[in-house]
Order: sequence, then C-alpha cells, then structure tokens
Amino acid sequence: MIIMGVDPGIAITGYAVLDYSRDRFKVIDFGAVTTDSKTPLPLRLKQLFNQLDDIIKTTAPEQFALEQLFFNKNVRTALTVGHARGVAMLCAARAGLEVFEYTPLQVKQAVVGEGRADKGQVQFMVRALLSLREAPSPDDVADALAVAICHSYHCGVSGVGFR
Amino acid sequence: MIIMGVDPGIAITGYAVLDYSRDRFKVIDFGAVTTDSKTPLPLRLKQLFNQLDDIIKTTAPEQFALEQLFFNKNVRTALTVGHARGVAMLCAARAGLEVFEYTPLQVKQAVVGEGRADKGQVQFMVRALLSLREAPSPDDVADALAVAICHSYHCGVSGVGFR
Repeated sequence: MIIMGVDPGIAITGYAVLDYSRDRFKVIDFGAVTTDSKTPLPLRLKQLFNQLDDIIKTTAPEQFALEQLFFNKNVRTALTVGHARGVAMLCAARAGLEVFEYTPLQVKQAVVGEGRADKGQVQFMVRALLSLREAPSPDDVADALAVAICHSYHCGVSGVGFR
Repeated sequence: MIIMGVDPGIAITGYAVLDYSRDRFKVIDFGAVTTDSKTPLPLRLKQLFNQLDDIIKTTAPEQFALEQLFFNKNVRTALTVGHARGVAMLCAARAGLEVFEYTPLQVKQAVVGEGRADKGQVQFMVRALLSLREAPSPDDVADALAVAICHSYHCGVSGVGFR
C-alpha cells in the first residue's frame, strides 16, 4: 500500500510517500514544498497545487492522510492554513485518493506510543522506524512522515475514513 | 472590463460575473455553487473547483475580486471557509486572473455609500444598480455581486492588488 502523508501550510507543506507492506516501510519520497512570502497568495496556492500534483503523479499513492487541525490556534492562522489544506485535499480528490484524517494524539500514539510526545521524540522515532540517515526536518516534513506512518498502522486495521 | 466576484464557502459559494464599461453594468452571470454536507470534504472541494473552473472558462473574466475575511469569526469557521477560499483563489490563479481583496467596509461603502449598511440594504442596492428583476439571494450571491460592483468602481481608480 502506497500512502501519502501531508502537513499543509502556505510557507511550508511537508509531504511523505511510503510503501507499507508486510509490516515493513519503504520510503519512496519525502520533502517540503515551500513558497516565498513575497509572492501573492493566489500564486503561492497555485505553486503548491502544481507541486503536490506532480508528486502524486510521480509517486502514485493509493491513499492520502493528514492531521486534523488543532482548534486552539488563532483565527488568522486557521484561515491561512485552511487555504493550503483545501488545496492539498483538492489535489488528493482530483487524483481519486481517499483522504484520512488523524488527530495529533493518534499520530503521536502511533509513532511514539505516547500521545504527549514532543516534537523531538516524534523526529527520533520517525527516523528510527524508517531507517533514515538523518532526523527529518523541518518539523513539517517529520509531521508528514509521522501521519503517513500513523495511517500505515491504521489502514489494515481500522479505516478511519473522512469524517 | 469583465469582473468576477466570489463569496466562498464550503456549502454555498456565491459568484457573479459583470461587464463594467463606460460606467454601466452588464450582468453576465451570477448564482451559487452548492455542495452537499453528506459529501466528504475533499470531494466538495473538487466540486467547487470544477464548477468555478467551468464558470471562468464560460464567462472569461479579466479580474477576480473577493472579500477579506472577518477575523471575529470563530476558529472552526475560519478554517472551513479557508478551505473553500483557497480553492477559489487557486481557480483564479490558474486562469491567470489577478486577485483583488476588499474589506466588508469597502464593499458596503461602494454599494450602499455607508459602511454600516445591513444585508437588506446591500441586496436592495445590488438589485437597483444591476436592474435585477428580483433581489439576489441567498446572501452569498448578493455578496458576490456586491464585491464585483465594488471592484468595478475601484478598478479604474485605485487598483488595490493583492496584499
């Protein structure tokens, strides 16, 4: 099963594509799509759309996972992240991918075994589980890898589906 | 100058396409793109994208206007609207349209001549200015027409541009 995890944002969107079969991970691709804050927002969204679309076409994921958003963020942050998140979900839907959402707690529990894990622990475990040479950074990339791992563990067991 | 105004939302996105030349309006098209709350969010965003894309292709607007969002809305609302707004801006950017934003105050001042106007006054003036047979409804459609009128008045005078 090829799974794409995404942590969307206007400035940085982390992405990860993993092949999970027989309880083993193969890392297909991961990284960050970044856009320049001097570029007008509509063009940044277009860059994000085009790059995610390319990654999906190149890596051919079968399922798509992302984190449910915190609602303790402020309204401006939520609105801005919402723009990027809408574009990421649109890319998945256009490619015919089913979209799965996990709470931050579910992701941390899946990756670290502990819902209260900090970012350092998540990075450490993502690196260990995927046998990466270095800890993935920035956080957005680690978070995209983490949600892909989380969905890998869940997808055979309890398909969560979209809301 | 053919101007498209949009009031984005997941359930209802109002849209309006006006031709404004020599201080006169010609209504090209207006209406609402609606999606069903039982449909998963990624598919609703895809429906919105496809329909806005069709409207842009059919009516060939030259510029695109929408309201700046209130930040007194709650976080969940901002996030949800953000998804639809991101998709609407993406459609504009993909079509090569420049995107202009106006505050609710600017829109009301342009349409009613009074920043504190209520929704009824906006509907009344939109109907009068465009010689519509009926008051446009729902509010999202009236708001899309209003922001298109606002941009029509501004575009010859003070191009606001995007942030």
